[in-house]
Amino acid sequence: MRISIIGLGLIGGSMAIDLRRRKFATHITGVDTSKLNAQAALNLGLVDELASLDQAIENADLIILAIPANVTMQLLPQILDKVDHQIVTDVGSVKGLVCEKIKSHSKRLNYVAAHPMAGTEHSGPWAALSGLFDGKAVILCDCEASSKQAVDLVKSMYGVLNMHIVHMGSTDHDTHAAYVSHISHISSFALALTVLDKEQSEKNIFNLASGGFDSTVRLAKSSADMWSPIFEQNAENILPVLDTYIQQLQVFKKAIANKDNAQMVEMINKANRIKKILSA
Amino acid sequence: MRISIIGLGLIGGSMAIDLRRRKFATHITGVDTSKLNAQAALNLGLVDELASLDQAIENADLIILAIPANVTMQLLPQILDKVDHQIVTDVGSVKGLVCEKIKSHSKRLNYVAAHPMAGTEHSGPWAALSGLFDGKAVILCDCEASSKQAVDLVKSMYGVLNMHIVHMGSTDHDTHAAYVSHISHISSFALALTVLDKEQSEKNIFNLASGGFDSTVRLAKSSADMWSPIFEQNAENILPVLDTYIQQLQVFKKAIANKDNAQMVEMINKANRIKKILSA
Repeated sequence: MRISIIGLGLIGGSMAIDLRRRKFATHITGVDTSKLNAQAALNLGLVDELASLDQAIENADLIILAIPANVTMQLLPQILDKVDHQIVTDVGSVKGLVCEKIKSHSKRLNYVAAHPMAGTEHSGPWAALSGLFDGKAVILCDCEASSKQAVDLVKSMYGVLNMHIVHMGSTDHDTHAAYVSHISHISSFALALTVLDKEQSEKNIFNLASGGFDSTVRLAKSSADMWSPIFEQNAENILPVLDTYIQQLQVFKKAIANKDNAQMVEMINKANRIKKILSA
Repeated sequence: MRISIIGLGLIGGSMAIDLRRRKFATHITGVDTSKLNAQAALNLGLVDELASLDQAIENADLIILAIPANVTMQLLPQILDKVDHQIVTDVGSVKGLVCEKIKSHSKRLNYVAAHPMAGTEHSGPWAALSGLFDGKAVILCDCEASSKQAVDLVKSMYGVLNMHIVHMGSTDHDTHAAYVSHISHISSFALALTVLDKEQSEKNIFNLASGGFDSTVRLAKSSADMWSPIFEQNAENILPVLDTYIQQLQVFKKAIANKDNAQMVEMINKANRIKKILSA
């Protein structure tokens, strides 16, 4: 299988490593608008060759877009304009707008909307890892709009990456993603900003970081290029979740201000239920 | 060195493991009001024997209180009433109130206020781990109110646990702890409550958890017994931090509502600075 990967960052690079090692890819062509990233991906052996977007489209059986959500919105229609037999898939964290945008495209059947739920807070081809996807879930959206052949190919690729396949409508996906991924990132960015704002001495942040801060703030290292378009595209779903989150914080604040231990214990015990769900 | 550990949970149990393995403790007496925890600690080999509080005090050169902050407030004065040569230390996450409470005690010199900044979200003697403290920071507070002998002993114990010693006034400690530990826990509890409230299908939470939620919500597994007294005792420092945090979330919300990418990118880039500090 000849694969072209557009966007040679953490996700594109990690897919390249395991798709090649596990013999799914026989040849990988890479495209990246950053010359630095492109050259690094070649030097690291993630891709066999670098090419222009047009060459990469022509060169492949399967085209994977692993680029920020706003760039996918621009590029996907242009790529579909040019494909013949090629199957195209993306890895974006918001699916509704992009599915809407290309829903009447004459090559809609060639496209499979996917969201592999895996990542780290690091970016770039240097951050690419073998095993990043193993055991995680991938959400395939609106598969009824894709050809069976396209869905089967993308499923077999995620099978090689050891991902658990979940089917969901793109609208449902975006609601759920707001809850369990996007809000976590906002929570973490805001926490980093809070601490950076107030702590004069950076040394103190470091010394005290093992108190739990390092865990909740991990996602605050994530890149603006990737996350700002996600927040913009999924605003409709994120805003009500953010409201609920702020309300929960305000209930907590009131309980703390009133030194209302019974209320705090009740809230914490309720929050603890997440333990059972995550270890299920 | 004969050591008595009051409270045989994650922290007390983990100290027991490494203080014995590393030959600092020759005999460990354990006390726990939960019979289940006490017996488990004995069965797991964390302690050599179980005893009453009075026996444990009499039996030791060093007494470590590893119990919730509200219980320390009750027990510490009673323990100091009964000590002769014994050195007493605690591991609580709030230091101001307890230092204030015993500041005029005739045995104040025998007490060293300490906060080892290490832990996991798990509780009980079953959660105890070797190496939990290695490479982390321990804050010693108000050491000028303790005898040199007491401070030296507690320092040498934390040396054996491979902790980096930081000195701080108890008031300063509580301000910093609010920023880098307590707010992280509130942020995480509130996030768990938000998601549990809205997500009808627990299956979906699990499937999507690899999107970052598992990291930010890890601390929401922490126990109410431990955290409710911390929030109560450190309310004065936590409330202004919580206000700042809610304000930051509201700025984010406004930027998302306005689809103001420039503002989002600026905030995320600023939040990213936490990367340099935490990897320093």
